[in-house]
Amino acid sequence: MAKKKIEDILPHRVLTDKEDLFCYGFDASSTEGIPSAVVKPINTQEVAEVAAFANEYETPIVPRGAGTGMTGGAVPMEDVIVLSLEGMNRILEIDTQNMVAVVEPGVINGHLQEKLEEKGLFYPPDPASLKFCTLGGNVAENAGGPRAIKYGVTKDYVLGLETVLPDGRVIMTGGKTYKGVVGYDLTRLLVGSEGTLGIITKMFLKILPMPEEVVTLLCTYDSLDAAARTVSAITTSPIIPRTLEIMDRESIIAVEKYKNFGLPQDAEALLLIEVDGSHASVSIDAEKIASICTSNKGNVSIADDTYAKQRLWDARRAISPALYKISPTKINEDIVVPRSRVADILKTLRDIAERSNLTIANFGHAGDGNIHVNVMTDKNNPEKHKKAVSAIKEIFEATLKLGGTISGEHGVGITKKQYIDMELSDTNIELMKAIKRVFDPKGILNPGKIFP
Amino acid sequence: MAKKKIEDILPHRVLTDKEDLFCYGFDASSTEGIPSAVVKPINTQEVAEVAAFANEYETPIVPRGAGTGMTGGAVPMEDVIVLSLEGMNRILEIDTQNMVAVVEPGVINGHLQEKLEEKGLFYPPDPASLKFCTLGGNVAENAGGPRAIKYGVTKDYVLGLETVLPDGRVIMTGGKTYKGVVGYDLTRLLVGSEGTLGIITKMFLKILPMPEEVVTLLCTYDSLDAAARTVSAITTSPIIPRTLEIMDRESIIAVEKYKNFGLPQDAEALLLIEVDGSHASVSIDAEKIASICTSNKGNVSIADDTYAKQRLWDARRAISPALYKISPTKINEDIVVPRSRVADILKTLRDIAERSNLTIANFGHAGDGNIHVNVMTDKNNPEKHKKAVSAIKEIFEATLKLGGTISGEHGVGITKKQYIDMELSDTNIELMKAIKRVFDPKGILNPGKIFP
Repeated sequence: MAKKKIEDILPHRVLTDKEDLFCYGFDASSTEGIPSAVVKPINTQEVAEVAAFANEYETPIVPRGAGTGMTGGAVPMEDVIVLSLEGMNRILEIDTQNMVAVVEPGVINGHLQEKLEEKGLFYPPDPASLKFCTLGGNVAENAGGPRAIKYGVTKDYVLGLETVLPDGRVIMTGGKTYKGVVGYDLTRLLVGSEGTLGIITKMFLKILPMPEEVVTLLCTYDSLDAAARTVSAITTSPIIPRTLEIMDRESIIAVEKYKNFGLPQDAEALLLIEVDGSHASVSIDAEKIASICTSNKGNVSIADDTYAKQRLWDARRAISPALYKISPTKINEDIVVPRSRVADILKTLRDIAERSNLTIANFGHAGDGNIHVNVMTDKNNPEKHKKAVSAIKEIFEATLKLGGTISGEHGVGITKKQYIDMELSDTNIELMKAIKRVFDPKGILNPGKIFP
Repeated sequence: MAKKKIEDILPHRVLTDKEDLFCYGFDASSTEGIPSAVVKPINTQEVAEVAAFANEYETPIVPRGAGTGMTGGAVPMEDVIVLSLEGMNRILEIDTQNMVAVVEPGVINGHLQEKLEEKGLFYPPDPASLKFCTLGGNVAENAGGPRAIKYGVTKDYVLGLETVLPDGRVIMTGGKTYKGVVGYDLTRLLVGSEGTLGIITKMFLKILPMPEEVVTLLCTYDSLDAAARTVSAITTSPIIPRTLEIMDRESIIAVEKYKNFGLPQDAEALLLIEVDGSHASVSIDAEKIASICTSNKGNVSIADDTYAKQRLWDARRAISPALYKISPTKINEDIVVPRSRVADILKTLRDIAERSNLTIANFGHAGDGNIHVNVMTDKNNPEKHKKAVSAIKEIFEATLKLGGTISGEHGVGITKKQYIDMELSDTNIELMKAIKRVFDPKGILNPGKIFP
């Protein structure tokens, strides 16, 4: 019997034209590939059929959301089928009684946010790409975002998952309850597994009532160190802001070059801080935060209307695309240090930049100790690029020395896999690989990711 | 060469006297056993030596904290060594810069709470047994507590773990950072694994600044249904209280018989509600909650001093021991339903009690949908006991039909293992057992638990 093709299984859902394949070959990292086919199932049954096919013919598949990932998690290696979940994009239920949203993986994060807002609700995880990225991708990568400092990351909101295993079997873990301790926590194991253990087809997400009020503060500094000291002072105060974002001078300049958002271009750093809560508490909390900023030599202003707030967040979310414009290549990292070491790592990053004569733009979730480090380089300039790659290794070493991790929310994917043994012991990696084999004994699901 | 004994490995740490062994043979469930020996290592190295010994001679070991578990997780089956972690009870660090407590597993939950309180901090998970239970046990069982409705359960606070594997190797997962996505989330997999995957020897726990103020409300009802309706009204309001506990008439009577706490014995149900936050917001929030209670026919009073608050919580925490006094045997369950179904499950529980002519006392974390169901019976009365066991099965069926789970915070251990296939599919169980084999190929760690 002739070997079947994916076109034989789901003829109406398969793309094989070169132009189409090209569109599914990259993400927001610098990696790319060309899949042998793209299949776009529209329900769990079809996903299960694709998996069963892949299992039978040992054809690797790569699950994919919107392709906004930063580490190549959804990028196809050679000769694989991309399984795009963009067709499974329905919000199945917004259960306001139980505060749970039930969604398919292809739903855009921002789309769910809009629908929830209409009901006075919100879903905290807010990656910068929220207008484009899918919730399935968010779960696969355990995405974070600015609000993580107060509200946590994606894993803190996933109550249950429907998942297609690599052999086509479908499992359900968790559900609409907020608690549950029957057996091992497979839900949490699947969150952040980067599409290597199963294909998520339905998600039960915890949602919250929208806070009554949000105050947005912009605080500018003449020195990066003063901004870092402010971060420390805020994170050890009794008030937990809902965002505590930092942008260094390079990030500010890049974003203002990209589009005029009105950020102060002479500042060495700025903090974008939000405080939320009830009407009664929020202005008092904002005042306390403002006074911490001022006493650390910051210059505070309050965004006094929705437009001003939106403009600040548009600027913040534009940094990543803006940086692509100032240099032919950027190496985008995502380190985390314990929060008390933010000043130390920022100093180290500046030293490395000076020593290697490279532009390094730093921004991100300072309140979590999570800094997006962008080393600006040029792939076609081997000497410069070599310096950049060596700077990355130095940055990771410094991060780990401070008790940190080399990835806070972007995952490992392809781009970081060569570095994971800097952080994880051989035993840790061995356990993880054995878990991978439990779920995917034939190694057909998203091969070549995470592990070196 | 003669087979070694555990006494040969750590001679000063081993108990083998019958009286001693007896003390390590039970927990707060109705199960018991007698270990062949008890070993009490005082550091990670010694734990690793015990594990290596167990691995070499294929001698099962059962890790144990304070033995306050509700499902037999720490109870030795036949011919096993109990590894008691009570000697590893040091708070290694309270890092106020990073808001992380580093502790050994034998630290009592309440002891950490006291030390944190002195610094204006707190650790949210607060199981009713907090004065006795160990943090290691809390992590192994993924313990909850009243404050879970607002603050989540143990898994939400575990940033990192040092774990001794069943073959004696030591791994570290996570650490002091609040984020991290390098590889699979082994930390979360270990949390709630009931001592079957590894022996936790060090824990990095997230801590929080203490809220400025807490208001405690007691609300009594003439009908259980009115109390349940109040729960629903509160959980769909924008205010998230920090506790929302229910006690039915049977629980109130039992606890008042045990000790006179001053609870109203003519009430059909009561809610114990706490609201916390800043001085500015908390009284406004408490008023809103009180008005929801009143409009659902509740009779609200405010505990106006520390003594009154403490008395209410002492009463709440005394329910479980108090119930032991009203009947020779209690079967203690720990179901969860989606929060909107609390009224339904309470009605079903009452129906089952009436139909089977059994006393069933219900209390617990209504705001989470997590009800501690206590079926009062007598092991020595076979007819009655048979009815009780059959009621349990009926309760689980009703719970699962409502989209719930058969355990919210007590784990599976021995007492619930015969029921897990009511909730989990064969595929789920097969995956879990395969994960168990990854960590513990020889099956020496806490055998006979979780899986039927």
